[in-house]
Amino acid sequence: MILERIQKENDIKELSDEELKILASEIRQFLIEKISDTGGHLASNLGVIELTMALHLFLDLPKDKLIWDVGHQSYTHKLLTGRKEGFDQLRKYGGMSGFPKRKESECDCFDTGHSSTSISAGLGYAHAREITGENYKVVSVIGDGALTGGMAFEALNNAAQLNSNFIIVLNDNNMSISENVGGLSTYLAGFRTADAYRDLKLGVMNSLNKIPVYGDKMVERIRRTKSGIKQLFIPGMLFEELGIIYLGPVDGGDIKGILKLLQEASRVDGPVLVHVITHKGTGYAPAERHPARFHGTEPFDIETGLPKHPRVKANYTDVFSTVMRKLGDRDERVVAITAAMTDGTGLKRFHNMFPERFFDVGIAEQHAVTFAAGLAAGGLKPIFAVYSSFLQRAYDQILHDVCIQNLPVVFAIDRAGLVGSDGETHQGIFDISYLSTIPNMTIMAPKNKWELSDMIKYAVDFSAPIAIRYPRGEAYDGLREYRAPIACGKSEWIYRSGKIALFALGAMVKTAEAVHERLKALGYESSLINARFAKPLDEDALLSAARHHDLIVTMEENVISGGMGEQVMRFYEEHNLSVRVLAIAIPDEYVEHGNVEILRREVGIDAETITERTIEAYEELHAQESGAERNDF
Amino acid sequence: MILERIQKENDIKELSDEELKILASEIRQFLIEKISDTGGHLASNLGVIELTMALHLFLDLPKDKLIWDVGHQSYTHKLLTGRKEGFDQLRKYGGMSGFPKRKESECDCFDTGHSSTSISAGLGYAHAREITGENYKVVSVIGDGALTGGMAFEALNNAAQLNSNFIIVLNDNNMSISENVGGLSTYLAGFRTADAYRDLKLGVMNSLNKIPVYGDKMVERIRRTKSGIKQLFIPGMLFEELGIIYLGPVDGGDIKGILKLLQEASRVDGPVLVHVITHKGTGYAPAERHPARFHGTEPFDIETGLPKHPRVKANYTDVFSTVMRKLGDRDERVVAITAAMTDGTGLKRFHNMFPERFFDVGIAEQHAVTFAAGLAAGGLKPIFAVYSSFLQRAYDQILHDVCIQNLPVVFAIDRAGLVGSDGETHQGIFDISYLSTIPNMTIMAPKNKWELSDMIKYAVDFSAPIAIRYPRGEAYDGLREYRAPIACGKSEWIYRSGKIALFALGAMVKTAEAVHERLKALGYESSLINARFAKPLDEDALLSAARHHDLIVTMEENVISGGMGEQVMRFYEEHNLSVRVLAIAIPDEYVEHGNVEILRREVGIDAETITERTIEAYEELHAQESGAERNDF
Repeated sequence: MILERIQKENDIKELSDEELKILASEIRQFLIEKISDTGGHLASNLGVIELTMALHLFLDLPKDKLIWDVGHQSYTHKLLTGRKEGFDQLRKYGGMSGFPKRKESECDCFDTGHSSTSISAGLGYAHAREITGENYKVVSVIGDGALTGGMAFEALNNAAQLNSNFIIVLNDNNMSISENVGGLSTYLAGFRTADAYRDLKLGVMNSLNKIPVYGDKMVERIRRTKSGIKQLFIPGMLFEELGIIYLGPVDGGDIKGILKLLQEASRVDGPVLVHVITHKGTGYAPAERHPARFHGTEPFDIETGLPKHPRVKANYTDVFSTVMRKLGDRDERVVAITAAMTDGTGLKRFHNMFPERFFDVGIAEQHAVTFAAGLAAGGLKPIFAVYSSFLQRAYDQILHDVCIQNLPVVFAIDRAGLVGSDGETHQGIFDISYLSTIPNMTIMAPKNKWELSDMIKYAVDFSAPIAIRYPRGEAYDGLREYRAPIACGKSEWIYRSGKIALFALGAMVKTAEAVHERLKALGYESSLINARFAKPLDEDALLSAARHHDLIVTMEENVISGGMGEQVMRFYEEHNLSVRVLAIAIPDEYVEHGNVEILRREVGIDAETITERTIEAYEELHAQESGAERNDF
Repeated sequence: MILERIQKENDIKELSDEELKILASEIRQFLIEKISDTGGHLASNLGVIELTMALHLFLDLPKDKLIWDVGHQSYTHKLLTGRKEGFDQLRKYGGMSGFPKRKESECDCFDTGHSSTSISAGLGYAHAREITGENYKVVSVIGDGALTGGMAFEALNNAAQLNSNFIIVLNDNNMSISENVGGLSTYLAGFRTADAYRDLKLGVMNSLNKIPVYGDKMVERIRRTKSGIKQLFIPGMLFEELGIIYLGPVDGGDIKGILKLLQEASRVDGPVLVHVITHKGTGYAPAERHPARFHGTEPFDIETGLPKHPRVKANYTDVFSTVMRKLGDRDERVVAITAAMTDGTGLKRFHNMFPERFFDVGIAEQHAVTFAAGLAAGGLKPIFAVYSSFLQRAYDQILHDVCIQNLPVVFAIDRAGLVGSDGETHQGIFDISYLSTIPNMTIMAPKNKWELSDMIKYAVDFSAPIAIRYPRGEAYDGLREYRAPIACGKSEWIYRSGKIALFALGAMVKTAEAVHERLKALGYESSLINARFAKPLDEDALLSAARHHDLIVTMEENVISGGMGEQVMRFYEEHNLSVRVLAIAIPDEYVEHGNVEILRREVGIDAETITERTIEAYEELHAQESGAERNDF
């Protein structure tokens, strides 16, 4: 195996051309085998094997800076920088991350995860290099999908000011996670028919060259005219117009061709874009056919491409998908929006049934939200389906464009809570906090699959901004018998007994049920309230809970800062009720990747830990009270 | 006066061409007079008088939808829609807003304030029109500065999917608030030399037309070739590449010319961009010469252009400006970033002295933050100076690009707290809340001007993400004698006495001093603690305060949700201390425009209200305790 000879960065430079080809095929085989076993990002990684190899031949790591936009396509980069063994524990708790991490290797110079950040970071490095007088290359690799994100454009616009070399590699596979959309995509698609383009260009040049003009060749003459004209002969005008030199396109399978273009690019004193045409899933037929399904995959059978452990139960996304189809049927004003996540958010069926009421806006959460505000102002009922961690991008738009005007936009927030193997950048653990800061916002979370269904229906007819957060994975199907109608700011009592009240939100109701049982087994009765609304809080329920209980335990899968627990504390404080509140939430720290059950234990929001802490707090309270009584005697 | 005849929308359509010209000049005069008196946005409004008139001739309001990006240039629009009387109370409490407001007029179809939102909102309206089967025109007016904001690009990219008419008016004045920057600006600058451009185009066309090719005219032949070629003859390629038809440029002073182009544009079945070249400050020489100074102006003398009430005391921005100059001198790794706010944030001097270490990235807060992260990763000490409400745009980048990697980026947050006359969209009252949700973030606020200086110096040498928030306006120069060195998470005791502890952050320390005095006058002693850090909290001080006091009054100029007060409550709850906390903060509501002092009273964070509430809470507590004591007997 040639792959065995790659022990660290730059080892690849020792290989012959023939060996490079073999290495590419070994890496392909390695990735397919490993990911079929662990799960992970497959299609994007298979598409950039040769590109990554060319970059490693070109660069001197770790001195040079290589930044992977999004970062889930960095597996070959990890392999070439001595992290082969890490693939056994890829994305597992304590194991190797699926994204670039500075903590993991000196060759990872900037952490990524969300889309469209790499040009900004690379430009920062390039300017820092100038100011510190250092000497290294900076390369940012960005996908054509990521280029639809506004901040990538902001960075391109800003890059024009740079006077030293900075290479932007456009990894153009004509895809976001789903198929790419929008004007930019159409623009780039023109290049993909590279032969047609070349023929056209040559044809025109030949025709023009045939015509003598004042003893000069026409082409030469036009070359010398002002910049507005030269674009006739230069592709990538969109980039050139912004002051970025454009080189390419080059075939993403051609290591030598890419390397040659990179070397050419490194001679430019300024920002330069190298256009590489890749194909998601290259070399593995099922992934080539279904790149979206093999974007982030569970373990699968290599032969058939089918999942090793097929899902039995529906997940929350499926429930959302079903309800959206029904709502689309029932109400023509219902429209759905996704930011390049048609499959992931479960909107594919809605898209198929109501194409004219479905909008994939690209990786563009900011625009998505204000666009939704415009749709609502125009009399529709827009639902923006989005992952919790990506909605962070649109905080200002929610606050400024939706909530000031109090427009009825529904935020269907999937992947809220711990998401597991994607890790720090993707945990959906901030949404309750950041949405709670916004006036006019209402925030709900369902305890089980029927409640999600009820809440979506409720939200669509709500006359103001409203968010529903629900977690990744299997939909809870317990507590079916509890299905009180949804009412704004009203919680639902599940059990009433004892002096401990468990006030749990969303997915934590299931955990609270387990806590209730554990407490009972240990001799403590408890009430269980399904909070339903994180904002506004159910004041009546909280007052009633305080009247009849000594300890209120709030439970949410969200960071503690700004979360529901703090707001419950404030509610009691404002009502001058000195009831003891134990807030169960995620500590004020980032949570790394790993199995969600392990992570829950790690951050202390599992049933066992909560039970312990509850008993501890209750006994402490009891001891204080007895103490107080003793003092009274 | 012709202006007197404009009582409501569409009245302008009754005027003759000659009268339109007179009206333009009357409006110009009116705006200069009114704004010289009330203050407000001048330069941008003077630049779009004729453009607005042309739009009103073209549209049928309120049926048609006209969306003003940013919105501070909508004064003529307000005049033409029956709001002339409103200018007497422009931006005053209870008076007319300086921005479009749906609440104010049916002719304002979408509220704006922050930059780059209008295309998204307009596109929403356009799609809603198709789905509801209604029939109205949609026009979004956006400046060239606003076009550097990423979400505008996201919207342009998405607009290509639209099959019905949607007009984007590019109000191109070659300025953001300051001079415009970046590749896009350079690109657009090419058009501004319109004559040169036209000459060139005609010249080439004529040359080409002179050459017979197979019996055909060259130009005609090329016109018929594929789209890649036609751009030779079409300006606005950048937009055309994105699938947006481009028309223009047209002179922004030429009402009839603009109208003609708008009518032409309305025949396009899809998105179309109309390029209008305007000039900030047109018709008022001081504003033409200093458009940045007359962007948002205080009342001024028309004759001289000088402020009517010159500032005597330095404001916080001045202090920041001075310190930055010193730091730039002292440490070559200090670099400064602004998002199109060089003047507003006080970075002009730094820019002049250290041009190579200064970055104006355009209206691009998202990019600014990740760019700063890149600069920090490259070994520099970046300071991003930004207004509180605009930093909302970069919530995800702070969380995802700066704080996960724990990079030492300094956020100098100006206009934190109530800003006054700009109103709802610009109040900087969310930053403590949204920044507190982010792990690894440190948040400071200075009590007076010396402390701001100390904090900036402290922040620059801090090894992790850190934010300093300070308010708009005059810097407090009291409490000079209190200048304990800054230490992370350490507060400063100002007074120690009595059973009430005032725990105040930043600008609220001044108010707390007044509360302390008022309380004393009413017979209540109180301690005063300058919190300094909103995150991390000074745990020792809070414990000490709880030990020696019965009531802790937290004070912050920020919304209550997720603010410092809630976090103090949580701290005590986590330590199982049942100390009474009265949290003074802004209620969970948007705060409209008006004088800051009035607004503070309105939201209850003025010294008088706080004193009353403090005494009330203290007496209530006392009554409870006496009650408890009585029961003990």
